[in-house]
Amino acid sequence: MDAVDEQAVIDLLGVLSYAELTAFDRLAEDARLAPTLAGRAALARMAAAEIDHHVRLTARLTELGADPMTAMAPFVPALDAFHESTRPRTWLEGLVKAYVGDGLASDFYREIAAHLPDPDRALILDVLADTGHADFAVREVRSAIATDRTLSGRLALWGRRLVGEAVRQSQAVIAERDQLAALIVEGTGDFAGIARLIDRITGAHTERMETLGLNP
Amino acid sequence: MDAVDEQAVIDLLGVLSYAELTAFDRLAEDARLAPTLAGRAALARMAAAEIDHHVRLTARLTELGADPMTAMAPFVPALDAFHESTRPRTWLEGLVKAYVGDGLASDFYREIAAHLPDPDRALILDVLADTGHADFAVREVRSAIATDRTLSGRLALWGRRLVGEAVRQSQAVIAERDQLAALIVEGTGDFAGIARLIDRITGAHTERMETLGLNP
Repeated sequence: MDAVDEQAVIDLLGVLSYAELTAFDRLAEDARLAPTLAGRAALARMAAAEIDHHVRLTARLTELGADPMTAMAPFVPALDAFHESTRPRTWLEGLVKAYVGDGLASDFYREIAAHLPDPDRALILDVLADTGHADFAVREVRSAIATDRTLSGRLALWGRRLVGEAVRQSQAVIAERDQLAALIVEGTGDFAGIARLIDRITGAHTERMETLGLNP
Repeated sequence: MDAVDEQAVIDLLGVLSYAELTAFDRLAEDARLAPTLAGRAALARMAAAEIDHHVRLTARLTELGADPMTAMAPFVPALDAFHESTRPRTWLEGLVKAYVGDGLASDFYREIAAHLPDPDRALILDVLADTGHADFAVREVRSAIATDRTLSGRLALWGRRLVGEAVRQSQAVIAERDQLAALIVEGTGDFAGIARLIDRITGAHTERMETLGLNP
């Protein structure tokens, strides 16, 4: 790997480390919106899984000779802005965000990681694997919609807002880091490759909304 | 174990399960008060360790045929009231609470667990073992006091307030559960035994305050 690639890897590990830390933070906060003790415990467990990922990613940064705090720092404003602008007001909004928002972000990071050599590729794909958010969120949201049909319109709107903010946030992340942008462009090959990447991510998002019973 | 003991074990596992869940919640909240990204990550890791304990305790409850949510429920009001009344306003208050408050609670639960048969005794002593709170909190608090001497008076007052609220809370917990009270009384033997238990807990608390550089 040449010097440019190494910085791109550190950037990707850095943004993911901070993404996991904020995911922890957010799931911990959303846990307090849980209507039941069981729901609260379920979200707390998911939050703990994110920290396990965070620890593994920062350990790899240290192994590469990078300071984890320095590697995370450039991504703090964009990720904080995303979470500030998409703060769930209800338990269900939190679950839709955990499923739809994290799914979208994971797809995006996974696409970039696919072009890395191992062990970083394997590590990133592993920490991006679902930690139980999906099944739990789908079950809770679908059962809530089943008992109150008016919810689905509001939650669908929320899902669309999450996408808009996620796109803004990922553009900010990429604009911040040249090497990361280069990695995406080189990995996808050309503009047609980027278009196909966006197609894949959009397609997976549409599927997730439909799984929840929401109009994409 | 007769029927009374079994309920006492379930009570102890239940109160501890909920205590770990609230510890998670509180550490996650306090992480946001961290002045540095490193401090925030450190507290998030501690919070995740609490959830690991919570998971092990609830697994044992399930093994004993008890529903973890039902077992935790009786202790929700007392523990929530404790945390409501001792909400840290600063990063340092949060660390003192993590060290002094959790230390006190752990000592109390450890004294009760000592009278249980294994595997519950071993499980409880293991989850009550320090998860890194101690060293981190001591280091941060001592270095803060070293640079600003006026802090030590305020934090010492805070430490005393934590004890007062902890005593109120543990009385509420015991008053709520006859079997748990019986376990303490039987385990300690008599009133002299209870007096010695209180002595031990108070002594350990004094030591912790002194370790932080605070007047007990």
